[in-house]
Amino acid sequence: MKIVYIVAMVAEAKPFIEHYGVELQEGFFAPLPCMCYKAEVHNNELYVVLNGQQHGSDLVGCEAASVATLSAIQKINPDIIINSGTCGAFKSNGAEIADVYLGNAVMFHDRRVPGDDEWGTQALGNYPVYDKVLEMADALGFKTGKVTTGSSLDMQPCDKEIIEQNGGELKDMEGAAVAFVCSLFQKPILFVKSVTDLCDSGAETFEEFSKNLAKASEALKEANIKIIDYLTK
Amino acid sequence: MKIVYIVAMVAEAKPFIEHYGVELQEGFFAPLPCMCYKAEVHNNELYVVLNGQQHGSDLVGCEAASVATLSAIQKINPDIIINSGTCGAFKSNGAEIADVYLGNAVMFHDRRVPGDDEWGTQALGNYPVYDKVLEMADALGFKTGKVTTGSSLDMQPCDKEIIEQNGGELKDMEGAAVAFVCSLFQKPILFVKSVTDLCDSGAETFEEFSKNLAKASEALKEANIKIIDYLTK
Repeated sequence: MKIVYIVAMVAEAKPFIEHYGVELQEGFFAPLPCMCYKAEVHNNELYVVLNGQQHGSDLVGCEAASVATLSAIQKINPDIIINSGTCGAFKSNGAEIADVYLGNAVMFHDRRVPGDDEWGTQALGNYPVYDKVLEMADALGFKTGKVTTGSSLDMQPCDKEIIEQNGGELKDMEGAAVAFVCSLFQKPILFVKSVTDLCDSGAETFEEFSKNLAKASEALKEANIKIIDYLTK
Repeated sequence: MKIVYIVAMVAEAKPFIEHYGVELQEGFFAPLPCMCYKAEVHNNELYVVLNGQQHGSDLVGCEAASVATLSAIQKINPDIIINSGTCGAFKSNGAEIADVYLGNAVMFHDRRVPGDDEWGTQALGNYPVYDKVLEMADALGFKTGKVTTGSSLDMQPCDKEIIEQNGGELKDMEGAAVAFVCSLFQKPILFVKSVTDLCDSGAETFEEFSKNLAKASEALKEANIKIIDYLTK
């Protein structure tokens, strides 16, 4: 089995990379900035793909995630793709900092195209996710929630409205882009998201995010070890 | 010389495709939905790449544009990429419906990440554009302006603020994503944009867009004929 992780930030992947001792595959995606790490786990191939950097910072957001996912599918042809990363969530849904969720659905909340027709529907996305996610969440004791993706760290009134109307719970910056590319190849996509900030806490998002990034990334590592064991044993 | 056009909507490309009689290359990007048309013009190779369709409508937006641009660069290795399409513009800048502009710069207006540091800078994008664009605009009599890209058809107050602060003039839904992918390969990117709606007219964007799409697409065709002649003669 080939498992490919798509991760935006080095900080999100580092505890995980260190645990598995995955090795950097130099030039794997050249000339693209995406980085590929590889290890063997219980006779399965584990790849961790980072979006890479440009202009001195990690490439976050939907365009970089689209590029990394497309490249990873083309070069590795994985059996499953896992998008692991941090997210904002909502106190009103019972979320707490460093909680780990599996995504039971995925949508965009910042692609506003009017209409209930095929244009409006396509803009929201609502791509399929890994079909055994509920079974996995049950077995491993994870909560589940709907991933909702936008290109910004904050949440504007127009975002909040769409998130509420469509039941978004885990606000991230890459998930739906990864799922869109997976949908083009019918590849299963699993989301593992850990909470860095509570969108309805009133706190400043960037401060909360920065303060909780290390803790949430550690929680991601622990969750991903369980998930890889579950998938490969 | 290999010229690759990246176009989101069939309606935007159709007058142009009919003029050049470019031929569909069946399965060129399979299993991706992107479509490739090809013709020879003055002994140069002309490709028109459409994002393709999903769920019954043309794939618009930044994720589909990222996928199409990456695939086109990998499969065709063009000398220049041209993103041709419609846009919103501003009466206050002197824009009128069906005006054609060349892009003299490009940015995102809906990737809000705080800070004047490398994170905030990267979110805005500001990728390089074709370095002979001013010379070309002069020679062919086109106006020039800064392309500003977001994933939505409307313009929310948060978008307007970023567009005004950064001098955005031609509001589209793909340009900066195409430019981002081009920047990863150092490929020259030229923008040809025709105005379907005036963002500061008070009119409903979707209605204006729909009403003027055919006229703006016809203007795009005429502009692209001049541009291809200029590049290939």
